[in-house]
Amino acid sequence: MAHDHTLCPRFENAFNLLGKRWNGLIIRVLMNGPQRFKEISDLIPGMSDRMLAERFKELEAAGILIRRVYPETPVRIEYELTEKGHALEPIMDAVQTWAEKWVE
Amino acid sequence: MAHDHTLCPRFENAFNLLGKRWNGLIIRVLMNGPQRFKEISDLIPGMSDRMLAERFKELEAAGILIRRVYPETPVRIEYELTEKGHALEPIMDAVQTWAEKWVE
Repeated sequence: MAHDHTLCPRFENAFNLLGKRWNGLIIRVLMNGPQRFKEISDLIPGMSDRMLAERFKELEAAGILIRRVYPETPVRIEYELTEKGHALEPIMDAVQTWAEKWVE
Repeated sequence: MAHDHTLCPRFENAFNLLGKRWNGLIIRVLMNGPQRFKEISDLIPGMSDRMLAERFKELEAAGILIRRVYPETPVRIEYELTEKGHALEPIMDAVQTWAEKWVE
């Protein structure tokens, strides 16, 4: 069990991050490719822009996504999953499959 | 996105349950088969018996495990994953793989 113990906090942190309101949905949307703030905001109607900005910061701090600034006129800002973020896909799929079958 | 929206709370609930302290570890231990309270308690040293009892109740309420009472002398009580609980295995594996690779 020593191995499991060492892993436990990392494991729980991963679940906590993904279980936080909106994060799963934001990550799902970004799996399709980089998006601008407004595009994601439009795709998730129930979520306020302030909340989205907050989640972006947390997910960026966690290394799940990056914010890219393109120096155009007007400036273009896109949010994009990192490799670490894209690597979440099998987890998201597994949870979705489980939740569809087992959660009311 | 309508589909994702409907699923969102179920999805988040699943993550929240699994991200709760000790739950991942308790479920991992039970993947190996039914266990008695004392056996699980011994396998997870940092966790108090009161905490384990509380987690058992929550996981039982969530349909993840059942508590079986065998009318022997002395009475034998075992905790066992349900089918819903066992179905978590691909998720646990996926998160473990991801956390091992990506989480410091």
